[in-house]
Amino acid sequence: MSAGAPDTPRALRELAAAGRWNGPTAGILDGHQQANLVIVPRELAYDVLLYCVRNPKPCPVIAVTEPGDPVVRVGTTVADLRTDLPRYRLWRHGEPAGEPHDITPYWRDDSVGFLLGCSHTFEGPLCRAGVPVRYAPGSAAPPVYVTDVPTRPAGRLSGPLVVSMRAIPAALVARAVEITARYPTGHGAPVHIGDPAALGIADLSRPDFGPSPVIEDGDVPVFWACGVTPQLALPAAAPEYAITHAPGHMLVLDHLVDAAPEGQ
Amino acid sequence: MSAGAPDTPRALRELAAAGRWNGPTAGILDGHQQANLVIVPRELAYDVLLYCVRNPKPCPVIAVTEPGDPVVRVGTTVADLRTDLPRYRLWRHGEPAGEPHDITPYWRDDSVGFLLGCSHTFEGPLCRAGVPVRYAPGSAAPPVYVTDVPTRPAGRLSGPLVVSMRAIPAALVARAVEITARYPTGHGAPVHIGDPAALGIADLSRPDFGPSPVIEDGDVPVFWACGVTPQLALPAAAPEYAITHAPGHMLVLDHLVDAAPEGQ
Repeated sequence: MSAGAPDTPRALRELAAAGRWNGPTAGILDGHQQANLVIVPRELAYDVLLYCVRNPKPCPVIAVTEPGDPVVRVGTTVADLRTDLPRYRLWRHGEPAGEPHDITPYWRDDSVGFLLGCSHTFEGPLCRAGVPVRYAPGSAAPPVYVTDVPTRPAGRLSGPLVVSMRAIPAALVARAVEITARYPTGHGAPVHIGDPAALGIADLSRPDFGPSPVIEDGDVPVFWACGVTPQLALPAAAPEYAITHAPGHMLVLDHLVDAAPEGQ
Repeated sequence: MSAGAPDTPRALRELAAAGRWNGPTAGILDGHQQANLVIVPRELAYDVLLYCVRNPKPCPVIAVTEPGDPVVRVGTTVADLRTDLPRYRLWRHGEPAGEPHDITPYWRDDSVGFLLGCSHTFEGPLCRAGVPVRYAPGSAAPPVYVTDVPTRPAGRLSGPLVVSMRAIPAALVARAVEITARYPTGHGAPVHIGDPAALGIADLSRPDFGPSPVIEDGDVPVFWACGVTPQLALPAAAPEYAITHAPGHMLVLDHLVDAAPEGQ
């Protein structure tokens, strides 16, 4: 399984590449930028990039690789997208087709990789500011819901907005907005505060993905755009070839979320 | 020449389309978002979009049109990119090739239009916050300099960062940073404060474009990324076909810069 939690993002990436860290990245290396991954053929890359630009809250672009080049450079991070994530998900014609730990055999000359922001980014800053992040026992991730709010389509990509929910004490909701607004690569400020029905969520206790919510008296449900959104838009395009991270198994970058390098 | 300054962005666009407003848009319709325009063939659109994503300060993307569709929709704005700007610049193989007021004859089935943010956006908010914006008499634009700082290339596009300069009283520089940081579609916070030599600018009194600077005792030169940047990166790609706005002649959108619609 997985070795002890490493001290640095680089050490984590090296363990993942050596097959010695296969676990999720939630809750480790607090303060470092984590990134979702989408890999598509070059012929679909414009649609994916435009989809991200048109939907910046669920899909904040951190980096885009050159076609065929598996190495991504962001600040001091130099990562091999074929090996440095703990777990991947293969897609064939829009359907999941396996979850390998190494995608070297699946890399192609026309593969383009997109690193997208991840909400793991803002949970540390929320906690440090005194905003409790309540998770189900044994879980390190929030509940996730598919809404009835459409994203803005781009070319062959279209789908609903997906959101994560954190229940926040009413008196701290404004602080949670202020803090998360500082992290556009962590999906930024919430997309909705309060009534789940406004997003088409009928039953908060039954998320589409992730654990059940933990809601205490006086809490308000607060919804952030979620990085699962592009994984629902991609099947609409039904590319014969696509690879993403496996849920919860992100690329961890060297830089702290409070020191993001300029540009992508 | 130009009719009296219109009351609304829509009226301005209608005058432009009717050939009755051919003048620049700087200093009019204060508070409304203005946008730079880049039109390229679909085959170059991925490079242009990626260049913008990699260089968000000079090239903040407001909207991207569908290939061949000249109509752009942003919030309540519905604009025809062929007619609704006061003046355009044609490019052939990377060289300027005319400045028509209507590009209907030049529109193609594979034309893709990009609306990019413009620093006209943040000058109203600066003035309202008590930060003087000093322009040469008779001018409504800042001096512009080509720096020796490279932008991040994307595909066939590459070139230097271009900046605009406004001289700000030292005690108000921090306020100018705070205010402009709120407007990513106005190029956001400055890219540099102080010594022009750090950007490779040898002589502040000799800008590459625009009027001479107006600098008073106690002022600090403050530099913002400039929307001219992509016009220098595009010739590197030498597309056989490209169209931009003519300098200073922007598309004016309905929405106020303080009420930007979500997404693009």
